[in-house]
Amino acid sequence: MQQEQASGAPLRVALLGCGVVGSSVARMLVEHRDDLAARVGRPLELVGIAVRRAGRDRSDLPVDPSLFTTDAAELVTRADVVVEVIGGIEPARSLIESAMKHGASVVSANKALLAEAGPALYAAAAEHGVDLYYEAAVAGAIPILRPIRESLAGDEVRKVIGIVNGTTNYVLDKMDTTGQGFAEAVEQAQALGYAEADPTADVEGFDAAAKAAILASLAFHTRVSGDQVYREGITEVSAADVQAAREMDCVVKLLAICERTDTTGPDGQPTAGVSVRVHPAMIPRSHPLGGVRDAFNAVFVEADAAGQLMFYGKGAGGDPTASAVLGDVVAVARHRVGGGHGPGESAYADLPVLAMGQALTRYHISLDVADRPGVLAQVATAFAQNHVSIETVRQQIVDGDDAGDAGGATRAHLVVVTHSAPDAALAATVEALAELDTVREVTSVMRVEGD
Amino acid sequence: MQQEQASGAPLRVALLGCGVVGSSVARMLVEHRDDLAARVGRPLELVGIAVRRAGRDRSDLPVDPSLFTTDAAELVTRADVVVEVIGGIEPARSLIESAMKHGASVVSANKALLAEAGPALYAAAAEHGVDLYYEAAVAGAIPILRPIRESLAGDEVRKVIGIVNGTTNYVLDKMDTTGQGFAEAVEQAQALGYAEADPTADVEGFDAAAKAAILASLAFHTRVSGDQVYREGITEVSAADVQAAREMDCVVKLLAICERTDTTGPDGQPTAGVSVRVHPAMIPRSHPLGGVRDAFNAVFVEADAAGQLMFYGKGAGGDPTASAVLGDVVAVARHRVGGGHGPGESAYADLPVLAMGQALTRYHISLDVADRPGVLAQVATAFAQNHVSIETVRQQIVDGDDAGDAGGATRAHLVVVTHSAPDAALAATVEALAELDTVREVTSVMRVEGD
Repeated sequence: MQQEQASGAPLRVALLGCGVVGSSVARMLVEHRDDLAARVGRPLELVGIAVRRAGRDRSDLPVDPSLFTTDAAELVTRADVVVEVIGGIEPARSLIESAMKHGASVVSANKALLAEAGPALYAAAAEHGVDLYYEAAVAGAIPILRPIRESLAGDEVRKVIGIVNGTTNYVLDKMDTTGQGFAEAVEQAQALGYAEADPTADVEGFDAAAKAAILASLAFHTRVSGDQVYREGITEVSAADVQAAREMDCVVKLLAICERTDTTGPDGQPTAGVSVRVHPAMIPRSHPLGGVRDAFNAVFVEADAAGQLMFYGKGAGGDPTASAVLGDVVAVARHRVGGGHGPGESAYADLPVLAMGQALTRYHISLDVADRPGVLAQVATAFAQNHVSIETVRQQIVDGDDAGDAGGATRAHLVVVTHSAPDAALAATVEALAELDTVREVTSVMRVEGD
Repeated sequence: MQQEQASGAPLRVALLGCGVVGSSVARMLVEHRDDLAARVGRPLELVGIAVRRAGRDRSDLPVDPSLFTTDAAELVTRADVVVEVIGGIEPARSLIESAMKHGASVVSANKALLAEAGPALYAAAAEHGVDLYYEAAVAGAIPILRPIRESLAGDEVRKVIGIVNGTTNYVLDKMDTTGQGFAEAVEQAQALGYAEADPTADVEGFDAAAKAAILASLAFHTRVSGDQVYREGITEVSAADVQAAREMDCVVKLLAICERTDTTGPDGQPTAGVSVRVHPAMIPRSHPLGGVRDAFNAVFVEADAAGQLMFYGKGAGGDPTASAVLGDVVAVARHRVGGGHGPGESAYADLPVLAMGQALTRYHISLDVADRPGVLAQVATAFAQNHVSIETVRQQIVDGDDAGDAGGATRAHLVVVTHSAPDAALAATVEALAELDTVREVTSVMRVEGD
């Protein structure tokens, strides 16, 4: 274990990356210098900022211009704490591993890297006796990783449901409040800076999936990587889906769901597993997550003893993310001064990650059907044959003219909400429904969460 | 620094108190034995439970009856971790100090003790090289102390507003939803077990004041004791106050408010200070705290970089509180195994605690006034003379008969909401208003928070 004397010598902090988050980190390190020194017990000295291109004007930052370097590989060899806010897999990963090898503790905001290579990074940290912290990787300023891996360390987490992507929450919130379609809402989000020019990582759920992997790993003491997370984005969410949710007093959210499930195996023995998935779902407006507006993030946690908890705040942005980074910097710096280490990887539970088909979910299904006797019986049979139990059915007669039906035949609109069932059975039911000759169209299929 | 070898020898846990929380702690220590051992890196062995009276039937607990002892003083001499859930000042304080002297780290749920003697306990912990953790002392299961003292350690907290007493939140919520008066709502809360037979500590705000002192100390790196907290309970909150709040689309909550204020001193220099207070206040229903129902707790935090955060969950009860206790037990046990210590007292900022009169607040004032020309001018003058700026005035003419006025004279109802001003100036304004001959009665005075 490395442990410096609690002398007055400053701890050397190296910063990798100077984009929106890095700039905020650099500024806070300088402006809060005295507070940070008092809290850590030693001054923190910014010894270098690795940037991709030299010569860019950064005179807005209150740092000595000589601190900027394009030689990140050299910088990480001369620091006690390395802050990585570059993002992406390489060169971030190599730099972090080199930093650890040279004895530095690492604070990272890199969700993609943690979701892909978390176990390897933890192993490197353990090997070199340094800390690995990454609070900023999930839900920006919201303290959520530390609560899960420390505050709830004596409890059993059952479920984590997160709104962990601000862009998609902004888009879905606009669709809800204005009735806009997906494309229009995304354009508006782009104009306001809430969505990138290429919004794929957000709207296709890749960003949320990486975060779900990190949350599930910590909550269930089990390795879960980003590619094990079932992922559905919001590009298929229509104005009709959002309207259907409104009629249920629900709202559509892109949810990152991590759930511990105890199912019965083929041998009749109980089997524990974890389901980790990202998809849009209807959630009641009265649910604590139902009121999370705009680009805010929130994470809802259910634990055996603690019951229901929620953590709410800003999930992105330079200063909020820097707040989480600096909290981690203080933690690892305190360990340098006072000894000890933060928690290492905890993967002892080693639970199997279930396939999406095994996840227990509920569906909300809207159907346009012919209005003739026996239709409801046929529909109900399709559910029964797939062993899916119906919670509610609502039928609405639509006049042929209103329906824009050339033949003028009356038809009906059916809304079915199911009880909980394996996702595979629900998906099979939807397929079966689509093939019934009395079903004209399956107009909306959406999972339901939150009760 | 004490540091055991990471051998397989169990860490000895002593439990002081076996009431609602203690029973849950004991049960969880036993039932989650394997998980806790895996997370700590060593088994945790419950070596004794100190109770006040021997011989009480505790066969519902899955613990060896021989573990119960009435000799707490002896028990604390033979433990690595002492969990104190007795509550109150003595004997809890002496037992904790003795435990530390004998080398044990301490986990406490005792808000009253921490608010009264926190600095002395931290000093004892530092002297003996042990940890002091007390997450369960504020807002039960909600991780709030660790986020403030660790996650936000790199940020500057500006304001903490907590709903930290479940009993009063239950009572106020019932008054809001049913129109009941205070006495009736308290009786109902007592019948349902949400309020004690003697509800003084809750309804008079003593419980919340202790928690406010703890929150403010951590948030502002400044010693704040319970007796420095301005305190007003909810016994004077009337059905009329709650109705007045409804008309503003607000709800009345008992708030624990910790605020960092930068004011200008008599010498014209900026002076930093902290205002720590517990009182009922109107808060908009749209505010994240406005939707906290029943006996739930929530803590809203504003920090420079993080922005607005909220933490929500169950603030009391055996299992929720035990969840927080066990999280702390795992933390201090990990330090025993891996070295290091949790953060000690951080009081370097040493900011002055302002008197209530200096706190900047807003008032909502309802007045019954005579309906004659010049009344509003007279009322407005009273505000102006006290340098209080009015945000809105609403006037409603009340017919003499409707008003139950024997003389049949018409009168008017005035509702004034002020801008932010020192509390002393607002209180002086209310006094001045009460003395105006055109003011028949000041019918409701309530502070306004949350925007």
